[in-house]
Amino acid sequence: MLPIQRAARSQLRHLPTFNRLPIRARQHAFTTLRTQPPPRIPRTSLNKTPLQLRFASTTPPTADKKVVIQRSRWVHYLYRTVAWFGFSVLITGGLVVAFFVYDASTYRDDPESYDIPVSEYALTPRIGGPKNLPIAEYFVSDDEPEFKEQKHKPKLVILGTGWASVALLKQLEAGGYHVTMVSPSNHFLFTPMLPSATVGTLEFRSLVEPIRRVVRKARGHFLKASAVDVEFSEKLIELESMGPTGGVERFYLPYDKLIIGVGSTTNPHGVKGLEHCHFLKDISDARHIRNQVIRNLETACLPTTTDAERRRLLSFVISGGGPTGVEFAAELYDMLNEDLCHYYPRILRNEISVHVIQSRGHILNTYDEALSQYAEDRFAHDQVDIQTNARVKEVQADRILYSQKQEDGKVVEKELPMGFCLWSTGVSQTDFSKKLAEKLGDNQTNKHALETDTHLRLNGTPLGDVYAIGDCSTVQNNVSDHITSFLRTLAWEKGKDPEAMSITYADWRQVAKRVKSRFPQAGDHLRRLDRLFEQYDHDKSGSLDFGELSELLKQIDNKLTSLPATAQRADQQGIYLGRKLNKLAHAAPGLLINEVNEGDIDEAVYKAFSYTHMGSLAYIGNAAVFDFGGFNFGGGLLAVYLWRSVYFTQSVSLRTRVLLAMDWGKRALFGRDMMNY
Amino acid sequence: MLPIQRAARSQLRHLPTFNRLPIRARQHAFTTLRTQPPPRIPRTSLNKTPLQLRFASTTPPTADKKVVIQRSRWVHYLYRTVAWFGFSVLITGGLVVAFFVYDASTYRDDPESYDIPVSEYALTPRIGGPKNLPIAEYFVSDDEPEFKEQKHKPKLVILGTGWASVALLKQLEAGGYHVTMVSPSNHFLFTPMLPSATVGTLEFRSLVEPIRRVVRKARGHFLKASAVDVEFSEKLIELESMGPTGGVERFYLPYDKLIIGVGSTTNPHGVKGLEHCHFLKDISDARHIRNQVIRNLETACLPTTTDAERRRLLSFVISGGGPTGVEFAAELYDMLNEDLCHYYPRILRNEISVHVIQSRGHILNTYDEALSQYAEDRFAHDQVDIQTNARVKEVQADRILYSQKQEDGKVVEKELPMGFCLWSTGVSQTDFSKKLAEKLGDNQTNKHALETDTHLRLNGTPLGDVYAIGDCSTVQNNVSDHITSFLRTLAWEKGKDPEAMSITYADWRQVAKRVKSRFPQAGDHLRRLDRLFEQYDHDKSGSLDFGELSELLKQIDNKLTSLPATAQRADQQGIYLGRKLNKLAHAAPGLLINEVNEGDIDEAVYKAFSYTHMGSLAYIGNAAVFDFGGFNFGGGLLAVYLWRSVYFTQSVSLRTRVLLAMDWGKRALFGRDMMNY
Repeated sequence: MLPIQRAARSQLRHLPTFNRLPIRARQHAFTTLRTQPPPRIPRTSLNKTPLQLRFASTTPPTADKKVVIQRSRWVHYLYRTVAWFGFSVLITGGLVVAFFVYDASTYRDDPESYDIPVSEYALTPRIGGPKNLPIAEYFVSDDEPEFKEQKHKPKLVILGTGWASVALLKQLEAGGYHVTMVSPSNHFLFTPMLPSATVGTLEFRSLVEPIRRVVRKARGHFLKASAVDVEFSEKLIELESMGPTGGVERFYLPYDKLIIGVGSTTNPHGVKGLEHCHFLKDISDARHIRNQVIRNLETACLPTTTDAERRRLLSFVISGGGPTGVEFAAELYDMLNEDLCHYYPRILRNEISVHVIQSRGHILNTYDEALSQYAEDRFAHDQVDIQTNARVKEVQADRILYSQKQEDGKVVEKELPMGFCLWSTGVSQTDFSKKLAEKLGDNQTNKHALETDTHLRLNGTPLGDVYAIGDCSTVQNNVSDHITSFLRTLAWEKGKDPEAMSITYADWRQVAKRVKSRFPQAGDHLRRLDRLFEQYDHDKSGSLDFGELSELLKQIDNKLTSLPATAQRADQQGIYLGRKLNKLAHAAPGLLINEVNEGDIDEAVYKAFSYTHMGSLAYIGNAAVFDFGGFNFGGGLLAVYLWRSVYFTQSVSLRTRVLLAMDWGKRALFGRDMMNY
Repeated sequence: MLPIQRAARSQLRHLPTFNRLPIRARQHAFTTLRTQPPPRIPRTSLNKTPLQLRFASTTPPTADKKVVIQRSRWVHYLYRTVAWFGFSVLITGGLVVAFFVYDASTYRDDPESYDIPVSEYALTPRIGGPKNLPIAEYFVSDDEPEFKEQKHKPKLVILGTGWASVALLKQLEAGGYHVTMVSPSNHFLFTPMLPSATVGTLEFRSLVEPIRRVVRKARGHFLKASAVDVEFSEKLIELESMGPTGGVERFYLPYDKLIIGVGSTTNPHGVKGLEHCHFLKDISDARHIRNQVIRNLETACLPTTTDAERRRLLSFVISGGGPTGVEFAAELYDMLNEDLCHYYPRILRNEISVHVIQSRGHILNTYDEALSQYAEDRFAHDQVDIQTNARVKEVQADRILYSQKQEDGKVVEKELPMGFCLWSTGVSQTDFSKKLAEKLGDNQTNKHALETDTHLRLNGTPLGDVYAIGDCSTVQNNVSDHITSFLRTLAWEKGKDPEAMSITYADWRQVAKRVKSRFPQAGDHLRRLDRLFEQYDHDKSGSLDFGELSELLKQIDNKLTSLPATAQRADQQGIYLGRKLNKLAHAAPGLLINEVNEGDIDEAVYKAFSYTHMGSLAYIGNAAVFDFGGFNFGGGLLAVYLWRSVYFTQSVSLRTRVLLAMDWGKRALFGRDMMNY
């Protein structure tokens, strides 16, 4: 201890009052003294007397004091940082250990196989149905603990593993039905980001979710088979699957409620030579594209490849300027622009060309005009060539022929040499859907999709038996017919001749209300009832006669457009139907007691389906466009991050989200890996 | 401020000495007083007089004091934790932002294409060579800034992108040679972990590295083509590649130094029906296996599949009990045991069987006996069936026929129904290697691999022109022949008849020294020279005559086994050759000046190749075995983590390491995803 401190201390000691201070106060007084740094002695004062020295220290000059305080602060912060650092190292270390402990717990060491009951019917299904095929009434897993409860519940069969079907399944409460999902592919594909997978921005498996994970959550079963036909009368679905020896085998699957979500196929538009094109519907397509692109690049490097051939190999043509085509073009361009140069001869970069052939006047023509314009400018800047008002005539192995309408209206025949062609020009019906439509005859008039009523029930089938959702379906809007018939009955009840009868504004309000509830889509067109009433009350009689009313309803009918074939619509339909099925499951016991087994039960338990458009977005190469109805905008990187986060949140499972994040990180750190195998 | 504190303070105030205390001491004395919490008044003392009250507080009872101190500590730690937490949140947030900033910087916005010079020869190569094919003397990228410097350097051509070739390339100093790598596959595959990719423990792309990344680091070129033939006299390699129109095209590639690292193919052992088998050589094989396994599981779930068929589909047969076969069996078992039950009917788990058919008496027969025993016990516990001393006779679509030798020596014919068969029974020569061996005639006597001398130069080719490394090659150990000829010359120089001549112990030491330097592998067998000398000096003449000496050398020769066809050996050879080529590049100018252009330059610049076995390891299903020569052991999970970390460190690039880590994490979090497409 320094002399000065000892002095000060002794001084305190002699104070009687000091001893009366509470202990801690005293301690502090001391510690303060102790922690006081030794007094700094200015060089000049080295020859001073002890007295002066002591004086200097007991009341040190302000300058010295500052220095003292600063130094201690420094030490203090240093200590803090070191402490924090050590602390966090400790924590992270702990986390790592924790992970390994968890990881270790995930390995099952002992073979887990014990006897389980399997019903004889499951092992040898009975033969029957119109075609005498095996009928899969029971499954080998029906008697497992998780499934026993549902064994005898109504059989709910879902065809397809797309957006609609999966959305429905995720909505469905486990236990209400004996659920069986049927599809030729055992994964759900997150379609909106598929173009990113074609060039390695994302990995394939980050976009697909094993369907059995989803099915298992709803305590359902899965069969890897494709639907061929439906026997509506006997409630049997005819399925086709790959047999154990590789051959094709067919069998029947009975249903109580059937959900058709089989989606759509690419639309050939009757063009020749599509075998030279790639498509972009499933994840395997993405893999083929990725390999083909790399293969072209590699071939372009070979010394035997002439300059003309190289240009052709590096000419990538996309037929169809919709979101898929545009996003693929963008992703492809990104890859060629960002990764190609690092690994391939520069000459390739110079000889590459990307072309988009669009039949309409603009790409992204379903979007707001300003946005398509923005996208086109973007592509122009990126040297992506866009051919609008062009129709593809034929695709050959090494070139694509198309006719283009000029400003002056003349149509010119053109051709492009190409080394790669993507065909993404809208969708059309699957053979299965066509077959069903045919079977249902007059009830199915739409050539492009299966028609359902606003409760998504397939028109022409017994009420509540069969539903159709997603791309394969369209909701029919025959407002006027429906209301007219309703008015007719009303008139007859009133004992009047419908043609002669006329309704007042009050009646009209009732009618409108009913229309809204039955056809939610019509709601927007039934806002100002008074206006409509005046507008169509031509004779200003204060009441609408039958003719005027049906004219009004027809107008509304025409205003209602059919729903878009998008993931968004499918998702909403799936959720809607899932909710309704839950309600039906809950209502079932009551209905059973009251012996209600026909009539419009759906109508009774749940509202009609109404589609709400959340807007659409598209990636266009280090930029993105958003079309939220009124609020539209397009932008650069920030928009891209927004675009990603939108899909990130919509992604199907935690698994896919984690993988997506990893992939984006990978791309940033290592670029896209250019390999084909 | 509380009365008691005011009191205490005033008490201090009146002390003359207190004012002489240094400022901070005083402050503390006060603050202590202030921060003192209000004195806790025990309920009982509420009716006491102020005097008593003051007394109670100025010297509070010990109990109260404790409480005070504890509470303040609590607050203190709470504050610390909160501060630390906030701090780390801040830091992590910063890191995330930093990542996004970096990510944003990785997008190239402007198309990067500018004119670059390309030599006419590169665009239209001259025709020539024995078969009048285009000769690729110059490449389209030769005139790029990065490559200009090497344009006229000696042409170093490396065939293959396996362990040996890549190890060499990574060792090579950029700029020394005009490097061209040629291979039909544009990626390097990390073979040791390939079995893990077959069931989704690891993803495919985590095991492959784009070869162009590696080549670019060495400022080399890459051609995606396969070697067909070599014209040693004209220093031309005949290559075959896929042409722009899909057809096959051939051309010549000139070389100054040629490295042959084309690897090997699977060995059919003349068994019929291998078209029903899967192989495990490349990453695409892994993909096919993964899809096939899932397909079998899905088919096994179908109601049309009989119980017998299901058993067959779920019987997985592995032919070959080497590391690959064993590790695949282990991985397959893991997947079936850990993931299958969650998603597929339980009956599958019960009907699954995994069989390993091994021709020798034990699996992993190249490992220490104890380890193979350990592995076998492990598999027995895992219900993996092992058939030893069994030779496969034929593979049919649905069964595999084999003959097994019983304990009593009798051979019994057996058959196994199977739904999947992996063929992993050793390696054999590629057609290319066979062709070369043929061409070189007597210089190539080994049926299984290309023979090289201890400098890895292909026997029969001009010294220093052609090297062979990796699985396709073997190092020839003809010690005795070599030494004998050396002795002959020695004898003639001494003017003696070699047969008659004899050498003393001193001479013998010289000879041994020379043998060691020329054949490092022989070193181990030349430890106790005196012993050997005595042992073979049959007539105890104190000197070895020619017969005795050559007998001794032959003995050593026999002891030298050929090197194993492993990644380890290939890697060592690649590194060795890479180092030597660097030395040669450095020596070149000097040699040029001294006009040295023949003779054993390799010998002059670098030592002979010597293989050092680092040990071998294998994964055997939640356990691993390590064979480090003397130090062998096998164990459970911890061993597995060790096994992983060994390969993690050996992995080719940062990219693959990160991906491996991600994959292991994925497996732990989400299990293996069971999809096929």
